[in-house]
Amino acid sequence: MNPNSPKILAGSGTSFSYKFLANNTGTSMSLTESNHGLLTSESEFVHHIALFAALLCACIVIGHLLEESWWMNESITALAIGLGTGSVILLTSGGTSSHILEFKQEFFFIYLLPPIIFNAGFQVKKKQFFQNFTTITLFGAIGTLISFAIISFGATRLFPKLGIGYLNMKDYLALGAIFSATDSVCTLQVLNQDETPLLYSLVFGEGVVNDATSVVLFNAITNFDLSDMNTYTAFKFAGNFLSLFVLSTLLGVLVGLLCSFIIRTLYFGRDSTDREVSLMILMAYLSYVLAEVFGLSGILTVFFCGIVMSHYAWHNVTINSQVTTKHAFATMSFIAEIFIFMYVGMDALDVEKWKFVNDSPRKSFGASAVLLGLIMVGRACFVFPISIISNLTTKPMENKIEFKQQITVWWAGLMRGAVSVALAYKKFTGSDEQHMEPANALLITSTIIIVLFSTVVFGLLTKPIINLLFPKSSYADRTQPSSPKSIMMPLLGHRLDVEAETGDDETALETTTNLQVLFNNPTNTIHYYWRKFDDAFMRPVFGGRGFISYVTGTRDVALT
Amino acid sequence: MNPNSPKILAGSGTSFSYKFLANNTGTSMSLTESNHGLLTSESEFVHHIALFAALLCACIVIGHLLEESWWMNESITALAIGLGTGSVILLTSGGTSSHILEFKQEFFFIYLLPPIIFNAGFQVKKKQFFQNFTTITLFGAIGTLISFAIISFGATRLFPKLGIGYLNMKDYLALGAIFSATDSVCTLQVLNQDETPLLYSLVFGEGVVNDATSVVLFNAITNFDLSDMNTYTAFKFAGNFLSLFVLSTLLGVLVGLLCSFIIRTLYFGRDSTDREVSLMILMAYLSYVLAEVFGLSGILTVFFCGIVMSHYAWHNVTINSQVTTKHAFATMSFIAEIFIFMYVGMDALDVEKWKFVNDSPRKSFGASAVLLGLIMVGRACFVFPISIISNLTTKPMENKIEFKQQITVWWAGLMRGAVSVALAYKKFTGSDEQHMEPANALLITSTIIIVLFSTVVFGLLTKPIINLLFPKSSYADRTQPSSPKSIMMPLLGHRLDVEAETGDDETALETTTNLQVLFNNPTNTIHYYWRKFDDAFMRPVFGGRGFISYVTGTRDVALT
Repeated sequence: MNPNSPKILAGSGTSFSYKFLANNTGTSMSLTESNHGLLTSESEFVHHIALFAALLCACIVIGHLLEESWWMNESITALAIGLGTGSVILLTSGGTSSHILEFKQEFFFIYLLPPIIFNAGFQVKKKQFFQNFTTITLFGAIGTLISFAIISFGATRLFPKLGIGYLNMKDYLALGAIFSATDSVCTLQVLNQDETPLLYSLVFGEGVVNDATSVVLFNAITNFDLSDMNTYTAFKFAGNFLSLFVLSTLLGVLVGLLCSFIIRTLYFGRDSTDREVSLMILMAYLSYVLAEVFGLSGILTVFFCGIVMSHYAWHNVTINSQVTTKHAFATMSFIAEIFIFMYVGMDALDVEKWKFVNDSPRKSFGASAVLLGLIMVGRACFVFPISIISNLTTKPMENKIEFKQQITVWWAGLMRGAVSVALAYKKFTGSDEQHMEPANALLITSTIIIVLFSTVVFGLLTKPIINLLFPKSSYADRTQPSSPKSIMMPLLGHRLDVEAETGDDETALETTTNLQVLFNNPTNTIHYYWRKFDDAFMRPVFGGRGFISYVTGTRDVALT
Repeated sequence: MNPNSPKILAGSGTSFSYKFLANNTGTSMSLTESNHGLLTSESEFVHHIALFAALLCACIVIGHLLEESWWMNESITALAIGLGTGSVILLTSGGTSSHILEFKQEFFFIYLLPPIIFNAGFQVKKKQFFQNFTTITLFGAIGTLISFAIISFGATRLFPKLGIGYLNMKDYLALGAIFSATDSVCTLQVLNQDETPLLYSLVFGEGVVNDATSVVLFNAITNFDLSDMNTYTAFKFAGNFLSLFVLSTLLGVLVGLLCSFIIRTLYFGRDSTDREVSLMILMAYLSYVLAEVFGLSGILTVFFCGIVMSHYAWHNVTINSQVTTKHAFATMSFIAEIFIFMYVGMDALDVEKWKFVNDSPRKSFGASAVLLGLIMVGRACFVFPISIISNLTTKPMENKIEFKQQITVWWAGLMRGAVSVALAYKKFTGSDEQHMEPANALLITSTIIIVLFSTVVFGLLTKPIINLLFPKSSYADRTQPSSPKSIMMPLLGHRLDVEAETGDDETALETTTNLQVLFNNPTNTIHYYWRKFDDAFMRPVFGGRGFISYVTGTRDVALT
């Protein structure tokens, strides 16, 4: 489609290298070297897989036990277990390694990120998401760009003062993109979407749009020639960025529609739930890799593929498949997330990386502190202004963003997580370099410090802060336990919500549609016309709520 | 536990090598060499993943379309698509390769086999399985040993007559073990478990016990020193084999019980379905890799772990988790199976393997024909005698195996599939050899010919033969469509059966328990005592049907 556009996986190695304690003696910095000499410790591999699986189990159990009494969550537990295991390995291996398995950064992008993002799209509450679409897009896209600009610019000015002068323009821009990627999991665990629906949808929606924006931005930067930046190249860059956004979205929508159409036409349900579920999983993954093949953003593609699938395909399958897909996708995402956090925990103790910054650990901590400060300032610079703009154009009182909510949105995006780590690894542990440069080591260690600090310290503070801002006594009745339904998608316990949420909405809109509403509240009316179009043209072809009954028996009759 | 016992993964390489068209010029025979020179075609990898994902989707869709009108199934479709893709790649690459991705044989054992076997254990109808336990064990364990002996002995005698004299004793024994591993998927797709419950449980039960037996046997052979075989070493071998069986089973049961206990005690359900599902998946996989770490049979371990989990843990989780696990496990198994068959299809056209037997393709086909004959004879030699013995000791008329059913059981085990291929790759493409010996190439090609021929030809004949033996008119009413619910586990559509199947059984047993029953029908009475023990000691601790109510609300009250 546009072969010259940036690629997430342009730098992907073609193999995954697993490196082990046994042969991890000195050259462990170059992640590609581990292809060689692997056969020396043949049965070690399975030992390490066993250890990793056991640790993941421990993570789930301990995470569950701690969150009842503490302000913990699985992310913090996984980090802590990773750190603990890393320490033990570091001690037993005589200080040479802290890893059980070492993965190339492509592993994150090819296997761990797609399920997380697809699931986010699949589980998003579409009504809230599209009703607040403008605000969410402002936060997620424009906000991320503002945050990116402030972090990049701030780092350019402040890093030389710390004596870190060896970074080039591209490094600074990459840093900005890496630290624009927020991780709102902690906050989402604490927020209750039934009590604060607007806040929840804002934080969740911003989170996913932000993920996509920062990855697209990162790829645009790393693949674009920034050596002679002028007005022409700046426009070209912007055009490239926009076309990436649009084409990626279109591809995701297309694959999602194709999947819905296939499932609706072939009507698997009667025969096998497995086929439906398999097809949905495989086509979702296909959308991601196809985007990479075409040089688009797999993150955006798979996110919109998830939205389309949950809007059409999900309604075409049997009730068993519906339950299974909802939970299976959430489970894959859950496992991928704790995997990443545990890996980060272990990686934090990688001695090789620290050796390079050994002469100046002060620099690492200084850079981390500067970046953390920039993250907080950068976020404040867009959350409050955008909230005010959004409030000015929003008529309904309940959709205005109060100051308390603005603070929560600001706080929710301060944590840095899996995406930042994956991007930093991708940028600073390039496969073309056999040994890590000091600058790269510095930035990797800073990333790890920021992720650890923000996840643990900010993460632990989230619950108290939200309880302070929104005291529990103000809620009607809290019969529901406050513990999270899931690490990322609390919809799972409320399957019927997804079906119920569109019902009342439709009639409400139909009675109020007039020019004033169109002017004051454009998204709602776009939503209304979309619904008209959807009911008239899309659903009859691709299925969807109301066009397929849930009972298999009656479907047999209705469809013949 | 016993470090000297055979290991499935003793020869596992520590990396997975993916080899591509681009750099697949001549040395493709040695699967380990592909670790090198991978970075030459970096973005190729994602292209090939995309192609593979697209082919898997095509497989599901075409498989579904064909089975309505033809006697096809996904296995045959996957083989055909694999062959077709292989041909296209062979032509476009100028005859150098037929693969999209090339995997080491460990890939099958570490990632593809565990979900298949775990799912088999998880979905097995426990009542039927344990009621026919003696017969199933006779077929699966003793029968496999008889089949192994006949194939090994026959090959030793007949191969030299074809001019294949360069195999040693260990090769012949390995051949016997490889071709004792049946693949009854085709038959299970055609059989209807509601119409022929005895036959279904025999074929299904034999299939899983056979898988485990042949893998254990294979590992015992490849890891045992057979150079000086005498009475002592023979006894030692038998003891080793038995202890492997017992210890592997115990490990699986232990991990399964631990998982049930954790889920019951911690009571995740209230918080998150994802945690329950994740924990079950991870602990099942953990049981498999732990078995490998201890040098046991992962196949047996994960099979019994599946049985225990479905008996206890499955009843301790929320209804959403129950539906999800049932279908998610089946889906993983389904994808793994079509993956294997498609890979075999592509591998069948691997020119490198055929080059080695180029001088004598007659030998390959001769060896295949001999082995196919031996498979048929070997199977006849145990199915009919064991059926007769089983009939003599069985009192209830409905549990006797009629001649028609004996023929079906015999036919069901003639197909060879994924396990045979994985074992053959493991044995004959060892990682220690840089280039393949002619003998190994011959045996690999023979394996591929047998798998292709038996799956396609025998597979296509299965439906007509079963329809001939059990005419449709003899069935009461066939309102249910005859097409399969799933490729391997047709239980999925009948969740409630699993719960209902134990109810009436109990009272029936209690009225007839006396010495004569104990003598005539030992398994039923063992089953009875087990049920007593289970209800009194196991279920109160580990949960299970009747000890946890399904409605989350009432569970809250009952458990506090």
